[in-house]
Amino acid sequence: MTQNIYDDDTFFEGYSRLGRSITGLDGAPEWPALQALLPDLHDRRVLDLGCGFGWFCRWARQAGAAHVQGIDVSEKMLARAIATTSDAAIVYDRADMEGLDLSASSFDLVYSSLAFHYVADLDRLMAQVYGALVAGGRLVFSVEHPIFTAPSHPGWSEHESGHRTWPVDGYLDEGPRSTDWLAKGVIKQHRTLATYLNMLIGCGFALVHVEEWGPTAAQIASQPAWADERQRPPFLLVAAERPVHSPA
Amino acid sequence: MTQNIYDDDTFFEGYSRLGRSITGLDGAPEWPALQALLPDLHDRRVLDLGCGFGWFCRWARQAGAAHVQGIDVSEKMLARAIATTSDAAIVYDRADMEGLDLSASSFDLVYSSLAFHYVADLDRLMAQVYGALVAGGRLVFSVEHPIFTAPSHPGWSEHESGHRTWPVDGYLDEGPRSTDWLAKGVIKQHRTLATYLNMLIGCGFALVHVEEWGPTAAQIASQPAWADERQRPPFLLVAAERPVHSPA
Repeated sequence: MTQNIYDDDTFFEGYSRLGRSITGLDGAPEWPALQALLPDLHDRRVLDLGCGFGWFCRWARQAGAAHVQGIDVSEKMLARAIATTSDAAIVYDRADMEGLDLSASSFDLVYSSLAFHYVADLDRLMAQVYGALVAGGRLVFSVEHPIFTAPSHPGWSEHESGHRTWPVDGYLDEGPRSTDWLAKGVIKQHRTLATYLNMLIGCGFALVHVEEWGPTAAQIASQPAWADERQRPPFLLVAAERPVHSPA
Repeated sequence: MTQNIYDDDTFFEGYSRLGRSITGLDGAPEWPALQALLPDLHDRRVLDLGCGFGWFCRWARQAGAAHVQGIDVSEKMLARAIATTSDAAIVYDRADMEGLDLSASSFDLVYSSLAFHYVADLDRLMAQVYGALVAGGRLVFSVEHPIFTAPSHPGWSEHESGHRTWPVDGYLDEGPRSTDWLAKGVIKQHRTLATYLNMLIGCGFALVHVEEWGPTAAQIASQPAWADERQRPPFLLVAAERPVHSPA
């Protein structure tokens, strides 16, 4: 089972104070880029894996989705999501993504924001997602970027040249990484970028777009502290489709 | 026009002394991984972009290819390739990849090893390659990995923890990088991994496999100096196909 760090009191309190927890999607700097990968949601069925407080589920309904299902392992996050929603077309379920069994061909969009890097058996989940999508349906997700997750000692270094650099090591050695972020010993799975993509291709997905996200010039102008995020991308965004023509 | 560094005397002499120049494909540690991405070449027409000394062109003929065309900008490399070949089914042409005009649907495989990172207008070249492939035809190429090309000051750093790390900066800022490798001021184009992949998708290619290459345990056992290459991948290998069904 995936570590359920979001129900840790210290982590939950810290997470609740993040911009993306207070102001929702607009508090997440990568949201405009992620939104650009979404299909038209009018009358569509949407699944959000790792829905958290339900910001995306509510947004999807406003964007015209007919039905939205949000899944999360965190009891605390779901409690807040449910308390914030009075919409019968949004359903929240508590489940661990590791062991999920999804109904076949039941969604037009599967969305997941910054959740897949917690999942150890991602192969199984990706195959479930593929099966749960209709032909022509889309998977759009973000994860922490592999350059971000790789280092044994993450954090900026001052290079002798005076530049700030991100000290990459262990990039090709995949597996768990323990970091202290909001709480001690948060476990995330480091995978290479190629592993994410080949996993999708292996399931039958066609890759539509890959984005190594960094802040735009306009975002840096309003948030100068984000400038370093262009030195190495913090997030990886991917859009993939279950093809209408399956591969020969 | 792309910098033709291979015809620089100092560079050419240094390059001629590399393992991959002396023993050919078997002197290139990434060759087994690249070879694994190739289709059956029996009776196929093959184009090698940046063919250098012609090692791959000759190998492709031995693997059964009906016709092989090698293209390179370096006069010195082509002279040696031509001198090494007495096979009427291998044709060498001197051309700059930047301005190449390829005949439509004339190849089953386009191959390129460590050459595309010299090309400034790669969009144009990728579109040419797509057009030159038959439906179901494949592009297989390697380039220096974007993590390898990004840094303003490439080279290993000793992290305060005692680990060797690769100091990434400027990853999202694409463009030329000047390094001193075999000669002073060798110009390579840094692109993000996403840019390579989205360029292919934008042309109409279906991605088949992405590999961030590092040495295997067996390779490290015989060449211990290669161990650090697993800290960050030196090469990116990609296989993509011109689909039989073009996207709807």
